[in-house]
Amino acid sequence: MTTASICTIGDEILIGQIVDTNSSEISRELGALGIKISRMISIGDDHDEIIDTLVKELKNNEIVVTTGGLGPTKDDITKAALAELSGSTRYVEHEAQLSKIHEILSARGLDVLDINRQQAMVPDTCEVILNKWGTAPIMVFRFPEERFGHPATLYSMPGVPFETTNALPDVVEDIRSHNTLTSIYHKTVMTYGMAESALSKKIEAWEDALPEDMHLAYLPSPLTGVRLRLSIYGGNKEDEERRVDEQIAKLKDILGDLIYSERDDTLENAIGNILKKTGKTLSAAESCTGGEISHLLTTVPGSSSYYLGSVTSYAIPVKEKVLGVPASTIREHGVVSSEVAAAMAEGVRKLTGSDYSVATTGFAGPGGGDERYPEGTVWVGVSTPKGTFTKMFQYHNDRKRNIQRFAASALHFLLQNMEK
Amino acid sequence: MTTASICTIGDEILIGQIVDTNSSEISRELGALGIKISRMISIGDDHDEIIDTLVKELKNNEIVVTTGGLGPTKDDITKAALAELSGSTRYVEHEAQLSKIHEILSARGLDVLDINRQQAMVPDTCEVILNKWGTAPIMVFRFPEERFGHPATLYSMPGVPFETTNALPDVVEDIRSHNTLTSIYHKTVMTYGMAESALSKKIEAWEDALPEDMHLAYLPSPLTGVRLRLSIYGGNKEDEERRVDEQIAKLKDILGDLIYSERDDTLENAIGNILKKTGKTLSAAESCTGGEISHLLTTVPGSSSYYLGSVTSYAIPVKEKVLGVPASTIREHGVVSSEVAAAMAEGVRKLTGSDYSVATTGFAGPGGGDERYPEGTVWVGVSTPKGTFTKMFQYHNDRKRNIQRFAASALHFLLQNMEK
Repeated sequence: MTTASICTIGDEILIGQIVDTNSSEISRELGALGIKISRMISIGDDHDEIIDTLVKELKNNEIVVTTGGLGPTKDDITKAALAELSGSTRYVEHEAQLSKIHEILSARGLDVLDINRQQAMVPDTCEVILNKWGTAPIMVFRFPEERFGHPATLYSMPGVPFETTNALPDVVEDIRSHNTLTSIYHKTVMTYGMAESALSKKIEAWEDALPEDMHLAYLPSPLTGVRLRLSIYGGNKEDEERRVDEQIAKLKDILGDLIYSERDDTLENAIGNILKKTGKTLSAAESCTGGEISHLLTTVPGSSSYYLGSVTSYAIPVKEKVLGVPASTIREHGVVSSEVAAAMAEGVRKLTGSDYSVATTGFAGPGGGDERYPEGTVWVGVSTPKGTFTKMFQYHNDRKRNIQRFAASALHFLLQNMEK
Repeated sequence: MTTASICTIGDEILIGQIVDTNSSEISRELGALGIKISRMISIGDDHDEIIDTLVKELKNNEIVVTTGGLGPTKDDITKAALAELSGSTRYVEHEAQLSKIHEILSARGLDVLDINRQQAMVPDTCEVILNKWGTAPIMVFRFPEERFGHPATLYSMPGVPFETTNALPDVVEDIRSHNTLTSIYHKTVMTYGMAESALSKKIEAWEDALPEDMHLAYLPSPLTGVRLRLSIYGGNKEDEERRVDEQIAKLKDILGDLIYSERDDTLENAIGNILKKTGKTLSAAESCTGGEISHLLTTVPGSSSYYLGSVTSYAIPVKEKVLGVPASTIREHGVVSSEVAAAMAEGVRKLTGSDYSVATTGFAGPGGGDERYPEGTVWVGVSTPKGTFTKMFQYHNDRKRNIQRFAASALHFLLQNMEK
């Protein structure tokens, strides 16, 4: 089958000041075409290292996609290395990219500088895919069979994640039209509320009985729960889909409502889909989660049709004054309690007039907490037309991770209490 | 100088379902020790590929750190590959890790299963660093000089990011105590409000005059602005610090208040530091940013001492009823307007009694916007004891990126209007 290697170029990734999100995006898109990613590599802004690495990857793969190293500033040297690698001694101006550079910079009220104009110059050995989202053109180098023992293509993409994401469909289209690809089939189901090891025990017999050519992966995430992904490479596409779907049907019998979605999904998206379908509305009251729940809910495009808003009541007077939580409830039960979670949920539901609401109060750490409810404890309240429900969750993580777990647990508890 | 390679093992990264955040963390910590990261590699759960890759990296580096491939479930095969690579034919139980496994699982109310117990079994060729944060032990394989041409050490760490982060100091301590390390010095300054290319033009003369052994990197991020990082590897530590600091002093003369921090920092942290110092408080009112500002502010440990809370008013009635934005203001000026941003900021400041407040109203997309204010426009309001100020920002990104840019622009505008 066709294999690809993804290389990021740039000291900024290698020294750890930014996280590489491009490679996983490119990998997902190429995987969907049935291309197997053999490896991902990050190397620094070093001429020889760039050439050595790319030669090796081009020998081992039909496709190499690089990102980064193309910025206008002086720390980027990828283009010169690619010129050398492809035997170019002459740069040519790409007119359409130059127009795009003018268009982008003038929309931002910026002058077009020499260093911007130079971005439209490319080695004469490459084809260009216009980068409609940024200033650096996408360069495509097609190497004949005699160079690396097989026909090989190198795509050089910009490293800014926003540009990579948006330019990727054009690169994918070029790959699709230039290769004869074998098929692949993945199916993902989303579970929440059971740890990876317990889940694996629960489905052990099913997993052991899987056909040899099927591969199961456990992909745990604090925000979405454990994703289970079943894959087959190669073979006949319809046949694979049917065979995977049969196995997933058996899995659903075992896991029941631990599964909240039968595609690669998020809790906030699953909630949004139900609200869109039922025409109901939602609000949130957050203490320890500090806006994370609201942030997650509003990352869903179209969320303004069902999400009315939230109150983040970090300070106690805000809980009392804005959400109407009685001072006596806080005094008697403590600010982290089932009673306060319920009062917050009811308060924000009344304030916004929403059908549903979700509320959190807890100790995210570091510090805080007491004997009854140590750091890592959250009480979640969910208020619905059928009544108000509360549930406690306990985690043992650092602050950021606790906030994520709290928010995800709250969204899952909301999902369980919604009319589907 | 000592070099290291970082390898992540696991199909989940290679097929792009999760993003590798471990490598950048490990890189930062090793970089601080003066170790140069030569490359980062991600490979799949494939026995031969694991062994081939690790042998090559051990030949080229004194240190190799792997993450991942150690989970209790069936898709992980790293431990067997490491046993083979190190010539082990026998597994031994690590008692302290087994106790930790019992402790962690029982705290979560889970049974200790066979697959959990197996995690405490390690090849007899390795030393173990206790993983206090998870169930998989950290394995350390020390190879003598004759094996790879130089003494080489392989650290195998778990891949769960929370565990990697927390276990990393123990690995770093082992590396520090077993190596004679050369020095490195990085200094980072944070800028906001100028694009990378314009910034590079502005500091061109300064950059051209840098000594040859200094390296400047531009690290743009939508949430923090452009980081400028100046580095020197090798040499005498105090000398390097002084030389870098001299250059940074010159840079400050050129950039002035485009610099908001002289260390690797974030806007929310810089704001928090001022509020802690001055004893003032803050609140937020968010429309299009949907909780992102509140979320960013509350990721800062100790933020509860100055951050009172926020209202996310996605729906117009919430703006009117909770924040007290007059219906006439919305009718006359539109919901995305300087006037509504000001009224939201004043409303939440009054509601919470905070000293400062920040508010956003805009069109994050997709869709929305009008002729006057297209998709990508945000009005930011900041209310302070000295008055209320507003500013408009325009971006041309997708929804998630616009939300990030809006939130960061709002935080920067707040910072500019705070008493330092």
